[in-house]
Amino acid sequence: MVKISIIGFGNVAQHLAAAFESNPAAELVQIYSRKPQTAPASFSRKLIHDLGELDYADVYIISVSDDAVAQVAAALRFENRLVVHTAGSLPMDILDAKNRAGVFYPLQTFSRNKAVDFREVPICIEACNATDLKILESIAKSISPKVYAINSNQRRSLHVAAVFASNFANHMYKIGSDICEEHGVPFDILKPLIQETAAKIKTLSPRQAQTGPAIRNDTETIAAHLAWLSDDNQRNIYQLLTQSIQHEREKL
Amino acid sequence: MVKISIIGFGNVAQHLAAAFESNPAAELVQIYSRKPQTAPASFSRKLIHDLGELDYADVYIISVSDDAVAQVAAALRFENRLVVHTAGSLPMDILDAKNRAGVFYPLQTFSRNKAVDFREVPICIEACNATDLKILESIAKSISPKVYAINSNQRRSLHVAAVFASNFANHMYKIGSDICEEHGVPFDILKPLIQETAAKIKTLSPRQAQTGPAIRNDTETIAAHLAWLSDDNQRNIYQLLTQSIQHEREKL
Repeated sequence: MVKISIIGFGNVAQHLAAAFESNPAAELVQIYSRKPQTAPASFSRKLIHDLGELDYADVYIISVSDDAVAQVAAALRFENRLVVHTAGSLPMDILDAKNRAGVFYPLQTFSRNKAVDFREVPICIEACNATDLKILESIAKSISPKVYAINSNQRRSLHVAAVFASNFANHMYKIGSDICEEHGVPFDILKPLIQETAAKIKTLSPRQAQTGPAIRNDTETIAAHLAWLSDDNQRNIYQLLTQSIQHEREKL
Repeated sequence: MVKISIIGFGNVAQHLAAAFESNPAAELVQIYSRKPQTAPASFSRKLIHDLGELDYADVYIISVSDDAVAQVAAALRFENRLVVHTAGSLPMDILDAKNRAGVFYPLQTFSRNKAVDFREVPICIEACNATDLKILESIAKSISPKVYAINSNQRRSLHVAAVFASNFANHMYKIGSDICEEHGVPFDILKPLIQETAAKIKTLSPRQAQTGPAIRNDTETIAAHLAWLSDDNQRNIYQLLTQSIQHEREKL
């Protein structure tokens, strides 16, 4: 049984803690939270608020805001243990060299009030040596079948790709919802379309799945939409993304 | 049993034909296709290639490219029958006034090689009078429980909203996939994230669901991503959408 301690009690940290807590292959030793927190009973006995209180663990998972990772790793009072972070955008070597560095990056969008099924979460792992990679692989596989060894460079490209495919896609939903609201149409009508658009990606490439006026080069509809949009920001986005899709069309 | 003929044999037309063909509440009378087509046996006997051959039907559904709808409606050789189009972007009155106009707009993205479950497709209907609206409602309800009476103005806003929430969201997947491909990372790693991002919209508003560097105002990560992106088009899109999300952040 791998002893795991989690350093941080934000969104990702709490989801990880819940996944390991209910996992026979792992023992959740401690959870460090900077500030006192209200936490579920199962966690509250394990919560500590001083990094100096950290007991031995096989793996320490630092899951704090990106800009605090280096500082927290440097503040640890032990050496030569396996210390990993969960940040898609940070290289492995941001971690203080006094410990053995690694990365345990669950590539999923975590919302505070929505449970996550970890079996659907790809976990990207990286370590300095084969033994540590094996340890990370074993705890990753205990919560998800989708485990990938990904180096720091690949992880950076994955993180940027995820900003487009998730954060920016969600912003497209947001603008769709704003337009509905403005015109008194229930946004619910669009929800099946949103689900189907995502579902198509399971079997079609995004290129094959593209529909709409831009890829059809339906210039009349595009002009009508641009004339109809009154919000400058929405119009700028419509224009730039239409051009981008048309550019792709030209490459076909 | 409502007699239906479909004018057009494109993507939407074929999906509608399949839905009505297997429907006890409707009788699919004829399908007009401009050009000779290979079609499933069940359809091939009903295919005609001359508008003059159209027999009586209770509803004629024109499902052709947007810019051909008016012309096809004008070319019909009968009068005072119920003729509807399926175009989200066109007003009802684009249809020739010699017949009773209506709209039967299935708000979904249809791909040629992917079956569609019509029970998940909202259908937006509009008609000139209550009797015709009832007819459209009955055939719509025979294939989907999600039927909405939506006027031409509301439909236009829905169509623009759908371009953002579906076409542009898919383009975000496309860019994510391009970035993965460029860096030798399997796009499959992103697919669960794409599904979860869409699934969140069932229970959270897009505003509540927004995650990522822009909404966190994580300026370091944003700067690093912009410096890392080598494609001008990708960088312009990253910048504009980040600003748009940050603008939303300021309104919170």
